[in-house]
Amino acid sequence: MAEHEAVLRKFQKELNSGIVSLVLLAILERTTEPLYGYQIAKRIEAALHADADAGTPIKQGTLYPVLRSMEVNGLLTSVVEPSVSGPPRKYYSITESGREVYSLWLQAWTRTRDFVDSTLEGNVG
Amino acid sequence: MAEHEAVLRKFQKELNSGIVSLVLLAILERTTEPLYGYQIAKRIEAALHADADAGTPIKQGTLYPVLRSMEVNGLLTSVVEPSVSGPPRKYYSITESGREVYSLWLQAWTRTRDFVDSTLEGNVG
Repeated sequence: MAEHEAVLRKFQKELNSGIVSLVLLAILERTTEPLYGYQIAKRIEAALHADADAGTPIKQGTLYPVLRSMEVNGLLTSVVEPSVSGPPRKYYSITESGREVYSLWLQAWTRTRDFVDSTLEGNVG
Repeated sequence: MAEHEAVLRKFQKELNSGIVSLVLLAILERTTEPLYGYQIAKRIEAALHADADAGTPIKQGTLYPVLRSMEVNGLLTSVVEPSVSGPPRKYYSITESGREVYSLWLQAWTRTRDFVDSTLEGNVG
């Protein structure tokens, strides 16, 4: 199956680029405290605990550009705080605008997921 | 909510680019006859019949580049047949390699879908 690895990687990458924003917003939408990048990555890993062998489909390095882009778009806000154990940390919170977008994206995800699943279940042809 | 439309469109577009290949392969994997682009688009619409108001998340124009790219990658093969009612039609079939890739993509989709749903259900934080 080695010859299929490249197309599979491309598929997974496209899939991830569609969901990483949703997963990030979901985490920040329900936390009561601001989180920095590493904490968000850890929460994503924790969500996968029951299925650790499958591996995290979202790599930590892909989180940071998404966090920055969401802040530029007004979905997140951040404060930089000093850290005793290293460089200052950037803590992110969701904005009111981010909550509205999350609610719309959640609907879009549910619709798309159900569409894909109904197609895969053979309600076609 | 007009100010959120652009980010929502971007999200839906990213989501679609990840799933259009999977949906296409799913349709060609289970059909017994080669299909041309318009037929595939119709089957996608049919899969959505029960939820017509939501609109098709995949537009017909986005199918053609994906079909061509899959043929280049050896996942599909095609034959051109004359048509009585218009220009010749290109009929696509899935290859053995395409079936193997479909099976791998199906696993990747299931894993990613379950990951997103478990995150949204709050198994984090």
